Amino acid sequence: MKKLFINCEIIDVFSESIIKANVLVEDEYIIGVGDYSNENVDEIIDLNNKIITPGFIDGHIHIESTMLNVYEFSKICLKHGTIGVVTDPHEIANVCGTLGIDYMLKASENVPLKIYLMLPSCVPATIFDESYEKITAAKLRTYMEHPRVLGLAEMMNYPGVINGDKTCLNKIKLAKYYNKLVDGHAPLLMGENLDKYIRAGINSDHECSTLEEAISRISKGQWVMIREGTAARNLDNLLPLFDGAYYNRCLLVTDDKEPWELSEHGHIDYIIRKAIKAGKDPIKAIKMASLNASQCFKLDSLGAIAPGYKASFNVLNDLNSVDVNDVYIDGKLVVKNKEVIDFKPTKIDSDIEYEVKNTMHLKPLKNDSFYIEPRGEMVRVIDVIKGELLTNEIHCKLNFDVNNGIDVENDILKIVVVERHKYTGHIGKGFIHGIGLKSGAIASTVSHDSHNIIIIGTNDSDMQLALKTIEEIGGGNVICKDNKVLGKMSLPIAGLMSDKPIDELSIECKKLRELVYDLGVDKKIAPFMNMAFVSLPVIPHIKLTSKGLVDVDTFKIVDLFI
Amino acid sequence: MKKLFINCEIIDVFSESIIKANVLVEDEYIIGVGDYSNENVDEIIDLNNKIITPGFIDGHIHIESTMLNVYEFSKICLKHGTIGVVTDPHEIANVCGTLGIDYMLKASENVPLKIYLMLPSCVPATIFDESYEKITAAKLRTYMEHPRVLGLAEMMNYPGVINGDKTCLNKIKLAKYYNKLVDGHAPLLMGENLDKYIRAGINSDHECSTLEEAISRISKGQWVMIREGTAARNLDNLLPLFDGAYYNRCLLVTDDKEPWELSEHGHIDYIIRKAIKAGKDPIKAIKMASLNASQCFKLDSLGAIAPGYKASFNVLNDLNSVDVNDVYIDGKLVVKNKEVIDFKPTKIDSDIEYEVKNTMHLKPLKNDSFYIEPRGEMVRVIDVIKGELLTNEIHCKLNFDVNNGIDVENDILKIVVVERHKYTGHIGKGFIHGIGLKSGAIASTVSHDSHNIIIIGTNDSDMQLALKTIEEIGGGNVICKDNKVLGKMSLPIAGLMSDKPIDELSIECKKLRELVYDLGVDKKIAPFMNMAFVSLPVIPHIKLTSKGLVDVDTFKIVDLFI
Repeated sequence: MKKLFINCEIIDVFSESIIKANVLVEDEYIIGVGDYSNENVDEIIDLNNKIITPGFIDGHIHIESTMLNVYEFSKICLKHGTIGVVTDPHEIANVCGTLGIDYMLKASENVPLKIYLMLPSCVPATIFDESYEKITAAKLRTYMEHPRVLGLAEMMNYPGVINGDKTCLNKIKLAKYYNKLVDGHAPLLMGENLDKYIRAGINSDHECSTLEEAISRISKGQWVMIREGTAARNLDNLLPLFDGAYYNRCLLVTDDKEPWELSEHGHIDYIIRKAIKAGKDPIKAIKMASLNASQCFKLDSLGAIAPGYKASFNVLNDLNSVDVNDVYIDGKLVVKNKEVIDFKPTKIDSDIEYEVKNTMHLKPLKNDSFYIEPRGEMVRVIDVIKGELLTNEIHCKLNFDVNNGIDVENDILKIVVVERHKYTGHIGKGFIHGIGLKSGAIASTVSHDSHNIIIIGTNDSDMQLALKTIEEIGGGNVICKDNKVLGKMSLPIAGLMSDKPIDELSIECKKLRELVYDLGVDKKIAPFMNMAFVSLPVIPHIKLTSKGLVDVDTFKIVDLFI
Repeated sequence: MKKLFINCEIIDVFSESIIKANVLVEDEYIIGVGDYSNENVDEIIDLNNKIITPGFIDGHIHIESTMLNVYEFSKICLKHGTIGVVTDPHEIANVCGTLGIDYMLKASENVPLKIYLMLPSCVPATIFDESYEKITAAKLRTYMEHPRVLGLAEMMNYPGVINGDKTCLNKIKLAKYYNKLVDGHAPLLMGENLDKYIRAGINSDHECSTLEEAISRISKGQWVMIREGTAARNLDNLLPLFDGAYYNRCLLVTDDKEPWELSEHGHIDYIIRKAIKAGKDPIKAIKMASLNASQCFKLDSLGAIAPGYKASFNVLNDLNSVDVNDVYIDGKLVVKNKEVIDFKPTKIDSDIEYEVKNTMHLKPLKNDSFYIEPRGEMVRVIDVIKGELLTNEIHCKLNFDVNNGIDVENDILKIVVVERHKYTGHIGKGFIHGIGLKSGAIASTVSHDSHNIIIIGTNDSDMQLALKTIEEIGGGNVICKDNKVLGKMSLPIAGLMSDKPIDELSIECKKLRELVYDLGVDKKIAPFMNMAFVSLPVIPHIKLTSKGLVDVDTFKIVDLFI
């Protein structure tokens, strides 16, 4: 099947220019770029001097964080001209272990979007995290030969790498043995420790928030992934990387992206557009989003419009607004006039699907399970800082005779983390300041990285109902008040991902957010997002896990009572 | 063993800037670039703010064409800051078959210079070439897993690739199966045929002589090797590639280089120097000669001064003159104060060495073997064009009653090509115009690509003596006059390479050249070089092989007599 695209204005990412030519495609490959008017073809497609660009590639995203299932995720990516993503399924791997990796590999098997995996490097994230299983180098080995597995995902345990921790180094060794890549994750790491980390074989970093960090990594040979997602937005600070020689070593990535943002703002196209608006060269930005990503991940036949490359490209209505009209992947039209051409979701083996959709392994609780036995008056309280994932430790004197110490007036709420993977009945309990809930309780199964159930409330009764409801809906987000369920959003896939279309999910998200604000939460806080990070004991300074309070700075469990 | 290089001015090829820092090296690797003044090291080397650059890499050279053995070749490369070469041993493979490849792999095993091989793709070059053996894809297979074999060398048979010749495509398929590279060689090929050639999987080209050719290849995704050697000099025409985005896809290579040029001018350093003199950016030029070569050939740990890279770098006295003072390879000092630190040549297995040094497999000839039986008066004569490898066909009326048709006065000399690989006794005979020899005969075993013995002379008797002498010295270049041997240079390794040091060889070369000029040859002609290409039937228009005259344009054997 031969197609000739005539009257194209091609973004040539090699010479960084626009070339007027026709493009000959046979089956999945670009055969030629030139005239070809004498070629005998099956179809001629006149692009009327529209711009065509190589398809965009997101070099680092956690699909689970979009709360979309793989099918829905693929559709929204395609719509925005993304033809490939490199994903780290470490959220689902915390919940389902290697079965979660199996699920993601299977679910991404037949979608038009090219979904490559980097294998989770840190499951569980820390010794305090109770995840479904410990994913060792030995368990990762079987995946290393999979053609869509490109290596080992963000090595977050940078102290481990620097200090020669064997379990970290074994995983890196494994990836290197299979001639695969290792992605980095080392915010603010500089100097001699950065050298050690890179020296271990770590190829990239997506955590640069300052220009100094980024330039230092480029000079030391890493690829820098300029991240512009929902939780972290680094583009503004890193705009100077679009100039000089730096751009040759940079990619554009999202990391975490909420569903409504994907539909309203876009994906990689949004980052390119934002860079252009800031005065940067469109061709360089497109090169970063295509050829550079392909080079970083050694995806030899992607990232350019040239003979021998896959026919995976976007037709734009306009270059500066990166207005994607049509998308071709491997020679097939997948987006026509801004509409995704429908395709079938991949059929998942029923045993895998059952496991992934039944992840609420809770020991039955008693009515007083959330009760905190007072052993003093002064307690450590987690203080949430607006707009940040960091928390501070503050010390408060509580009156345990009233509402078990909860002090709504002073915004001291109860927080619990309930283990949900192995029926241990472990519950971490504590207090939190800065959320602003005036009544009721909110709960979620999205709580990084082990995704146990996190519940914040003004009273035990609503917290218990929230837990019961979350168990009933098989995971998700729940809001209760006065022993009634005000709102719920089911995330049946591992308690992380929805089975609904993006539009419905976006509406659900917004509705839940409004409900939480109605309960008194400050609008400057993204309540579920903030809550989801309160249990991650790799972000300073104090966090709550199912094993109890963790002082992140000393990396020790600490008593609630002082 | 830890070494700290202090007070370095580092050429950072990633950010394209100069960084003042110290470089920490442990064993063969760079561990860090920074301060490291508190590091406990075995040795501190103060570079006093000298420039250090990544070591240079020649992406395409035929070692045999330098006439140097691998040991001597390595030394002269190191002296000029070349730390690695990618070589195609296709000259010796024509003479010795796969044993020639074995020899080159063995001889390059323990030298400090990193010698990578691309496997000869076209042996014999054509159906008219009588080489030692036909090297098929099956014979190449065993070499594909060798760690220093990077792929398949210059695919000269571009018509074969374009027209789907199975023997060509099988070799490319083999390389791709082993995930290896294929180098190109397609002078002047453009448009749709170029697309076909690239589409077959061909990664690079070193034959660009015009800017248009080069830009077209870059746009289509190939790496362009800017060649500046002895026979072909393309730098001047291709200087604009050092600007814009082009330089990111270019390398610097030599292809063929005579020994005296290596010692007097230099190697890759010479090309960088020449580019700087022409006003180009030194850092970009160095990047092309290091990081780009490493990227093109996927030599992941070479080409930059950064943590995790091999400690293979040059210390320069001055950037603009690329004045190499010291060279380190894998952490070891190999050139100190412009002097190569001596190392031992690799010991070659005696059976391989015997075969490679005994390549004169000649059927005993009769006294009248060069006699041309007249079958008419008008003959086809090879007309040599000064300064080019192209030849024209001219038609001359000869008097065979005098000196068997040779007409010294009108510069019509006899030329013969004597098969030397398989005792066939095949002799191609003809006439040549444009060499200018007034008396005697010259002979050589260097005659592309099959390297049979080529002899040009003013009389049969001197030509016979030249042949006899060449056989006695085991291959090389010979000049005879009046039944005396005026000069000889032995090339005992396959009749292509000397066993002498570069200085002696350079003197021998110059002496022989002078002798030839004394015999009347125009000084604008490089007599042995020109003679060596008169037998290569892939360069238009008429050539002589051991099977007879070949009309290159019709690709057919033609009769000497019209």
